Amino acid sequence: MSKVAILGAGRWGTALGLVLSRKGNEVMLFDKNPFVVEALKEGKDPYWGIEFEKKPFATTHLEEALDFSQYILIALPVQVIRKVLEGKSIKGKIFISASKGLEVGTNKRVSEVLKELFPDCKVLALSGPSFAEETAKGLPCAVVLAGEDVALLREVRQLFSSELFRVYLSEDIVGVELGGALKNVIAIACGISDGLGFGDNARAGLITRGLVEMVRLGTALGGKAQTFYGLSGLGDLVLTSTSSKSRNRTFGFLLGQGLSLEQAQEKIGQVVEGKETVKAVKELSEKLGLYAPISWAVYRVVVEGEEPLKVARELLLRPPQRDFEGL
Amino acid sequence: MSKVAILGAGRWGTALGLVLSRKGNEVMLFDKNPFVVEALKEGKDPYWGIEFEKKPFATTHLEEALDFSQYILIALPVQVIRKVLEGKSIKGKIFISASKGLEVGTNKRVSEVLKELFPDCKVLALSGPSFAEETAKGLPCAVVLAGEDVALLREVRQLFSSELFRVYLSEDIVGVELGGALKNVIAIACGISDGLGFGDNARAGLITRGLVEMVRLGTALGGKAQTFYGLSGLGDLVLTSTSSKSRNRTFGFLLGQGLSLEQAQEKIGQVVEGKETVKAVKELSEKLGLYAPISWAVYRVVVEGEEPLKVARELLLRPPQRDFEGL
Repeated sequence: MSKVAILGAGRWGTALGLVLSRKGNEVMLFDKNPFVVEALKEGKDPYWGIEFEKKPFATTHLEEALDFSQYILIALPVQVIRKVLEGKSIKGKIFISASKGLEVGTNKRVSEVLKELFPDCKVLALSGPSFAEETAKGLPCAVVLAGEDVALLREVRQLFSSELFRVYLSEDIVGVELGGALKNVIAIACGISDGLGFGDNARAGLITRGLVEMVRLGTALGGKAQTFYGLSGLGDLVLTSTSSKSRNRTFGFLLGQGLSLEQAQEKIGQVVEGKETVKAVKELSEKLGLYAPISWAVYRVVVEGEEPLKVARELLLRPPQRDFEGL
Repeated sequence: MSKVAILGAGRWGTALGLVLSRKGNEVMLFDKNPFVVEALKEGKDPYWGIEFEKKPFATTHLEEALDFSQYILIALPVQVIRKVLEGKSIKGKIFISASKGLEVGTNKRVSEVLKELFPDCKVLALSGPSFAEETAKGLPCAVVLAGEDVALLREVRQLFSSELFRVYLSEDIVGVELGGALKNVIAIACGISDGLGFGDNARAGLITRGLVEMVRLGTALGGKAQTFYGLSGLGDLVLTSTSSKSRNRTFGFLLGQGLSLEQAQEKIGQVVEGKETVKAVKELSEKLGLYAPISWAVYRVVVEGEEPLKVARELLLRPPQRDFEGL
């Protein structure tokens, strides 16, 4: 049994807290929201009212969480990670990133940001198809834990792994992180298509061609193609793109139904990672000279504010680039 | 403008009839159901009441359809194709198979059955993520036309292709046909999981690991891995496994909810291709010594009548075969 600090007690951080607690670990959750922290201190998760197996610690003081344990699980919105952790003195600890996205401005993956801030620490990434609520409730799911050090991977897996929370390993942290980040952009595209009423056939086509874009960009950035066809790529893409529980898909859906960017964001009320990640995707794909029509279309809608129907029609109805299907 | 005969005026045959008719082709549909044929003769599709652009011919006499044109589109249930066509004299014609599945007993793909019956004819396959109703209504979709003769592929594409019905080409007819067939088995598995209430995370995991099985078996049978990651593989798998409009998924769903095999089949009322294809998958995977745990689990439920919950638990909760994710 180990101690694990979790930074960010949003839905996913809390769900992972429940998983860790079920395995008998001592958990401390940090969040800036005092109401969330109060609920956690009473041993209840604040979202679905599930009891912790073992009452967790919870705090609004970051330092307290950082001092708590050797393992620090990151479940913060990607765009605040640097701001929250910058200037802290953290040495010889093990970060496990459960945040999916790319940092706007630097276009860096979360593990790169953490490595840059704390060169002395090790960083792993946890990703895969996993809606927080289902995981919290103990429904079965399979995820991937990625890092460079295989012995460390096996050690950290023990913290989480059970029959119901199946943790596979991967040495391709680049591919695993990119899959989790890039899929949010494609999920917004699927939401827009659904919101416009284009149907399930069109969405399946978008998912398929979207994965092609993810592979193209992801391998150019150093990930392995195989990783994108696995749980953290395809698996998470399918989950996020087809479910009404996905924030990214729902954000696109609302845009497709005619809401403005502001209205859609207000209705979601939570962070929509894909909205930020698409900026990095746009910049990276252009810099690398890679064709990414679906991601570019999402950029036009969610950043430049163009009309979804106009952009979607241009995307879906453009003449095929190639006679033959393929990458 | 060309003439095209369609054998089988079920939902997909009729939807393709509407697509062909919109492109200005003359269409003749053959079906044994006189009510369907009567409706078609009046220029209306019998399922959704959509008007044909150009009034089609329709007949209950097979010979009449076979004599009608150079192009014969096959939209019959896979298991009746041989029975319907055996002994007919058909020479120098071009078959386009739109039927997805493997023949029970011989384990042959549809194009293999047709080639065996009519060695003098050419055979292409049309596949991809396409629910009949959406295609009939003119919503956008992307499909793949596969065959060995590239000039013929380009010629036949002209019959169908439009901005809304996007036809990509592939020279890998083996992979395209196998994708369309094997995915039905995985879709039943996803339905069972959903029916049991295992949630979206579990389903996304099943789709991902199911695709791994499809690639494993499909490449051993001569298809290209890349094809399974495209529209006729992944695309169709995602569509079929996530939508309540899919017969194969719904069949599994009803079993997961506790209906018997007979009750579930009666409630669907139409052919469930995956129920037959799983027999071929079981036989082929065992013969080739390939690991296919999801397909085997489906076999135990839909052929051997084992209890879904017991089989699903064994499948989902088994210890991971490998530490590392991958093929």
